[in-house]
Amino acid sequence: MRYLITFSYDGSKFLGYQKQLEGKTVQGEIEKVLHNITKQDIKIHASGRTDRGVHAYNQKAHFDADINIPVENLKKALNSLLNKEIYVKTVENVSSDFHARFNVEEKIYTYKINLGEFNPLEKDYVYQYNKQLNIDNMKKASKCFIGTKSFKAFAKVNEEITDYVRTIKDVIIKEENEKLFITFIGTGFFRYQVRNMVGALIEVGNDKIKPEKIEEILLSEDRTKAPITASSVGLYLEDVKY
Amino acid sequence: MRYLITFSYDGSKFLGYQKQLEGKTVQGEIEKVLHNITKQDIKIHASGRTDRGVHAYNQKAHFDADINIPVENLKKALNSLLNKEIYVKTVENVSSDFHARFNVEEKIYTYKINLGEFNPLEKDYVYQYNKQLNIDNMKKASKCFIGTKSFKAFAKVNEEITDYVRTIKDVIIKEENEKLFITFIGTGFFRYQVRNMVGALIEVGNDKIKPEKIEEILLSEDRTKAPITASSVGLYLEDVKY
Repeated sequence: MRYLITFSYDGSKFLGYQKQLEGKTVQGEIEKVLHNITKQDIKIHASGRTDRGVHAYNQKAHFDADINIPVENLKKALNSLLNKEIYVKTVENVSSDFHARFNVEEKIYTYKINLGEFNPLEKDYVYQYNKQLNIDNMKKASKCFIGTKSFKAFAKVNEEITDYVRTIKDVIIKEENEKLFITFIGTGFFRYQVRNMVGALIEVGNDKIKPEKIEEILLSEDRTKAPITASSVGLYLEDVKY
Repeated sequence: MRYLITFSYDGSKFLGYQKQLEGKTVQGEIEKVLHNITKQDIKIHASGRTDRGVHAYNQKAHFDADINIPVENLKKALNSLLNKEIYVKTVENVSSDFHARFNVEEKIYTYKINLGEFNPLEKDYVYQYNKQLNIDNMKKASKCFIGTKSFKAFAKVNEEITDYVRTIKDVIIKEENEKLFITFIGTGFFRYQVRNMVGALIEVGNDKIKPEKIEEILLSEDRTKAPITASSVGLYLEDVKY
């Protein structure tokens, strides 16, 4: 039987999503608890990994298990055994050809930036930029990311990837109470892509580069032409759609 | 020279405000850093302590130091030496008869409750009640707390206290995105008083007691008549006014 779980986690409490030989990871914790419940060695397949420090509100993963537990009970069992840094929102049965990564149709990420005074209570949850940004220019620049194009200049260099074309459907920038929320809606993102795009938008916002420069960097397909990667603090995987 | 500092801190990262022989406390950390800067043994006097787990956005404390450092530089020195769980917002010179506790004219506390689904990202910042509450009844009940009256039934029993009369100027209850914010504005609060009032309001909200019952409990001046103390998670010292 194939199951799909939707879960949220506090990325600041883990070494990252992906299981490692040592150290606490989101995947590792969930697999450990699934083993406790089912007495089977279960590998979960997420919609994609998130880097250390990145949070998730609706991460999704599938797994196969020979069990006979109603989904509501499985959800309860998972949440009672997981520590409170991960929360399973739903458990669903899915068909055996469903794949949490290959079937992704849309992913939504949000990056949160504090433009106001340093806030010790959100230091692991909102990137503490603590200065004003030129939001109009950032909005202008963000439009360059929208469309179907090569994101090679904004992706982590990886010899195995031959096709860097992806579609970004929308980028929404919203300011509220001295916080900036940048939301990216796309068919999929390369490793570090969102943080690289945010890094570039911040450089536009602090007037280091002009909004038009983003188009030029995209066309170059050259990672070395793009500004630095933004901190993982502030990044949230908001949703995954199939 | 007497100084007044205004600072914020993440209460979940400390054993509490008040210095202890062992363990990390807010007072202990600030005094340690002040010692590093001034090479003097400095004791800070806060507007009041906060319990373990309670956060502060504008805690205030005064101290005396024989130093000749401009306040802006002292602020920078403090923030560069403190870890990022405490942030000093301002340093001011005050007259030698100013006292951060005795001169308090008003304190504002807010308690945050999540009525929606469990959120692992805010488990140390918002009390995870995760069920609906009867907010209309809570608002009705909260009116009983407003005024100048004895809060003995809602204070921690303490033989040394003879006068339990205090003034609560207002209680504001606001719902936003499945979160409830209960703000108390008063001349001063006894230990556990806010958490005890919130505990009672939650019992009203889940229909265990009627709103009118609060008046009765207040008049009884009997701590055993009042419902349980709410968790420290969710409580914020918002501001202190002189």
